[in-house]
Amino acid sequence: MQRGYVPLLYFVAILGLEAVMWKECRIIEVLRNKLVYQQRLQYMKHYFPINYTVNVQFEEVLRTANISKLRDQNVDELSLRYLWLNVNSQVLLKIWAVLLEKHPSWEYTQDLCHLFETLAEEYENYNQENVDSIIWDLVERILIADAGSSQKAMRPKALMDNCAKVMSMLYNKQCK
Amino acid sequence: MQRGYVPLLYFVAILGLEAVMWKECRIIEVLRNKLVYQQRLQYMKHYFPINYTVNVQFEEVLRTANISKLRDQNVDELSLRYLWLNVNSQVLLKIWAVLLEKHPSWEYTQDLCHLFETLAEEYENYNQENVDSIIWDLVERILIADAGSSQKAMRPKALMDNCAKVMSMLYNKQCK
Repeated sequence: MQRGYVPLLYFVAILGLEAVMWKECRIIEVLRNKLVYQQRLQYMKHYFPINYTVNVQFEEVLRTANISKLRDQNVDELSLRYLWLNVNSQVLLKIWAVLLEKHPSWEYTQDLCHLFETLAEEYENYNQENVDSIIWDLVERILIADAGSSQKAMRPKALMDNCAKVMSMLYNKQCK
Repeated sequence: MQRGYVPLLYFVAILGLEAVMWKECRIIEVLRNKLVYQQRLQYMKHYFPINYTVNVQFEEVLRTANISKLRDQNVDELSLRYLWLNVNSQVLLKIWAVLLEKHPSWEYTQDLCHLFETLAEEYENYNQENVDSIIWDLVERILIADAGSSQKAMRPKALMDNCAKVMSMLYNKQCK
């Protein structure tokens, strides 16, 4: 390999990563607007019966505190975003599944599902191989949805609050 | 009492009853429009999560079959209407209680609650003394809402379907 190729390849790789991040940030920006407090309140609280809950797996309750703990265990940011993405894709599908098409929160939830789907496509194309093994196992457990795994009854707004808060924690620096 | 007074009082009493019935029928007419299938479907099914149920007392599940049985026991129509009115007032309050003010079914349910309240006022002014003892006891049990009474999880639309069907059975002849 000629000497000049190394910095050139490095430069191309950096450019590639930047392009990926730019796409990711564009989706995050749309998600951020969709997940503002007022919309979470309207579609995930006001339009549901009081105290209504959806059953999710214990691991699907992903709070900022969980992210802090995983950071303390030196789990990298890319893996944490992979976890957040997979958890919330599942959570949103569970909320969507309890709604009829004419429910006033149906379209909002569908939009969120599609945004997470698009984000997942971006992610899987570039990052899957680099995911931390702890996170990889955790996501596998969530996706298999083991019948024996413990369930938790959660209010839809609480789930979306977690989603929005963890998103801020993971993307605020990178997607200003 | 002079001879002419008896038919005159009878005539006044008949007029009074007619006036009561006319008022009742006006409210029933509004209720009929509110409880048409399309509105029950929209506000009591589409706007609730799939399979959502409200806990009601066993006696609050008042179907047309129950009315037929009570008719077979010679319970008069006035008492049956009194039962229907009280059951559905309670049922509607229970549905209303699970909704926040910004829920899209809140106003619809509030309107129904108010219509039943107005109907109850009309009814209590004129008919309470004449209610069959079986029905009187049954309504007392419902209103006391004995903590020991058996509960049934019912979908809001199923409850409103019962309400509309029994209303047709009890009022279609009298309020054409």
